[in-house]
Amino acid sequence: MWNKNKLTEKLGISYPIIQAGMAGGITTPELVAAVSNAGGLGTLGAGYLNAEQTRESILKIKQLTDKPFAVNLFTPETPEVRDTEVAQANEWLLPCREALNISEVPKVKEYSTAAFEQQIQVIIEEQVPICSFTFGIPSQETLQQLKENHIVLMGTATTVTEAKANEASGMDMIVMQGSEAGGHRGTFLGSFEDAMIGTMALIPQAADQVNIPLIAAGGISDGRGVLAALVLGAQGVQIGTAFLTSLESGANEQHKQAVLNSKEDQLTVTSAFSGKPARGIQNDFITKMKEYEMHLPPYPIQNTLTQPIRREAGKQSQAKWMSLWSGQNPRSCKQLPAGELIAEMVTQIDQISL
Amino acid sequence: MWNKNKLTEKLGISYPIIQAGMAGGITTPELVAAVSNAGGLGTLGAGYLNAEQTRESILKIKQLTDKPFAVNLFTPETPEVRDTEVAQANEWLLPCREALNISEVPKVKEYSTAAFEQQIQVIIEEQVPICSFTFGIPSQETLQQLKENHIVLMGTATTVTEAKANEASGMDMIVMQGSEAGGHRGTFLGSFEDAMIGTMALIPQAADQVNIPLIAAGGISDGRGVLAALVLGAQGVQIGTAFLTSLESGANEQHKQAVLNSKEDQLTVTSAFSGKPARGIQNDFITKMKEYEMHLPPYPIQNTLTQPIRREAGKQSQAKWMSLWSGQNPRSCKQLPAGELIAEMVTQIDQISL
Repeated sequence: MWNKNKLTEKLGISYPIIQAGMAGGITTPELVAAVSNAGGLGTLGAGYLNAEQTRESILKIKQLTDKPFAVNLFTPETPEVRDTEVAQANEWLLPCREALNISEVPKVKEYSTAAFEQQIQVIIEEQVPICSFTFGIPSQETLQQLKENHIVLMGTATTVTEAKANEASGMDMIVMQGSEAGGHRGTFLGSFEDAMIGTMALIPQAADQVNIPLIAAGGISDGRGVLAALVLGAQGVQIGTAFLTSLESGANEQHKQAVLNSKEDQLTVTSAFSGKPARGIQNDFITKMKEYEMHLPPYPIQNTLTQPIRREAGKQSQAKWMSLWSGQNPRSCKQLPAGELIAEMVTQIDQISL
Repeated sequence: MWNKNKLTEKLGISYPIIQAGMAGGITTPELVAAVSNAGGLGTLGAGYLNAEQTRESILKIKQLTDKPFAVNLFTPETPEVRDTEVAQANEWLLPCREALNISEVPKVKEYSTAAFEQQIQVIIEEQVPICSFTFGIPSQETLQQLKENHIVLMGTATTVTEAKANEASGMDMIVMQGSEAGGHRGTFLGSFEDAMIGTMALIPQAADQVNIPLIAAGGISDGRGVLAALVLGAQGVQIGTAFLTSLESGANEQHKQAVLNSKEDQLTVTSAFSGKPARGIQNDFITKMKEYEMHLPPYPIQNTLTQPIRREAGKQSQAKWMSLWSGQNPRSCKQLPAGELIAEMVTQIDQISL
């Protein structure tokens, strides 16, 4: 069944399995390299890194693998900072900060696209083979620069309309993120609620409307999901949560255990951590912030405000204040080396008989 | 690929494709018979019928096919009627009634399980081969009576917990309803929000936890979805929306056209029509009732209150006041005879090459 398709050929990989570029220290160079060495495509989640951190991680990955890998960037957003909104959010966050003995209230400065532009230069300088984007489509100038440097471009879409926009922008392929997916929703056109489309419905409809290869994401944790996605019309899959619990993942151990012990009906979508909707395991932070959710500052302002809370919760191993991102298929996740996870998926696919 | 499996053997059908028992006049005897005659399993949606209407439809189906078919029943709920709650809901519904020139305000009587019990007797007397249930599991007495009469029992679940409860009750098979599904959510344990699990994630997790055959529902409108569901671990599929637009379907023509012209991101889940969450196409009724949604009477009280609105909207062809149920895969729906839809699905499956 592992015939090469346009996607695996373009990416130069053996299996159409992409490890999602989860941000926040989860995608260690060891994880990225392990996935690429096993025949999949590892992705550095550089969404929250600055240019120098991005370069440092890329150099480490190159030491660990000579296979293709990707870097995921967040297309930047620069919302206006409203002081009263920030003050109100800080008041709501105070009980969480007190519970964790945090005295630091993060400074919110005006946001710019400078850090993103510096990351783009690093990616070009380091000749990263593949660059993927979440939260929208960068400028034509940026995309052209990457194309001229022969970097493969991968967009993210949550609706057919967003898929068409990605195709029109010149992306080489698109991650179609179904509603099952863990972490942040990639929605950038229209409301996120309208764009909560299950993978089973999203893939065939998108496949009928765009001509570039599609990568299915959301709810896929094992070989059954990989093969089902190919049947639906995708040419590959992107898997996050199942690699989050892998041995090489840099996710906090509390986070890994929370996923491994979670069930499909214990998850929710919240904007409380970052100002942007994301799927994770229900906990005290989400419950307590629920009533304020509609009035919080937008991403990335709220993300800046909660950053010390998330960091300190990790240090203190207090899962109730952490962002425990997870997709809707936690029951299939295992704590294994990433390479073994890929080998298991491939074996499982070969054994499926109908 | 059409090896018999436990599901098709137990149901006595050629293809593992079940037409969903959509209530409200959609599943005409002609539709049910056309699906069964084409090798699938047609289902009469008897949720809103009384015993005599149920018998009448069954007799017509028997005239049109000698193949197995199913009847779907709603496991009854008997909420307490609170007069102030009903009066408030009627006030909120008044603008809709006025827009449609409806003077009738439906009488809400106490609800009982008598009509359901009479339906069960009809199903036994008419020797209906298969009986499926939505909104929970009937009493052991009812299930035993059906079993003694060799009627195959099919439950509905939206989480693994609900699947286990169905298996423990003695059901022969379970429809696993993913979040993509159109119409009413079948959730009966826990909150419906927690049970909005995408089909891609729901099926493999349930398949690992229960031993009876599973039927995937939600987001499946063509052969790609059927095969993907089998790959994920289901033994069959249940399809609603794609049969709603078929020629034999009794759905209002406005409803059919709304689905055929709809896109995957124009749907929402609302409790405003019936008091129970259901997925359909956004329209004025849903928008106007949004702010009251949390304070409406429970199902089936709200359903009784909106019944004249839905009926009159249908007569006047005013789609904006109708319940335009649809799953998240409307782009794949076609206006064809139901038998041709099944033949197309089977052909499509045979042509899938990876």
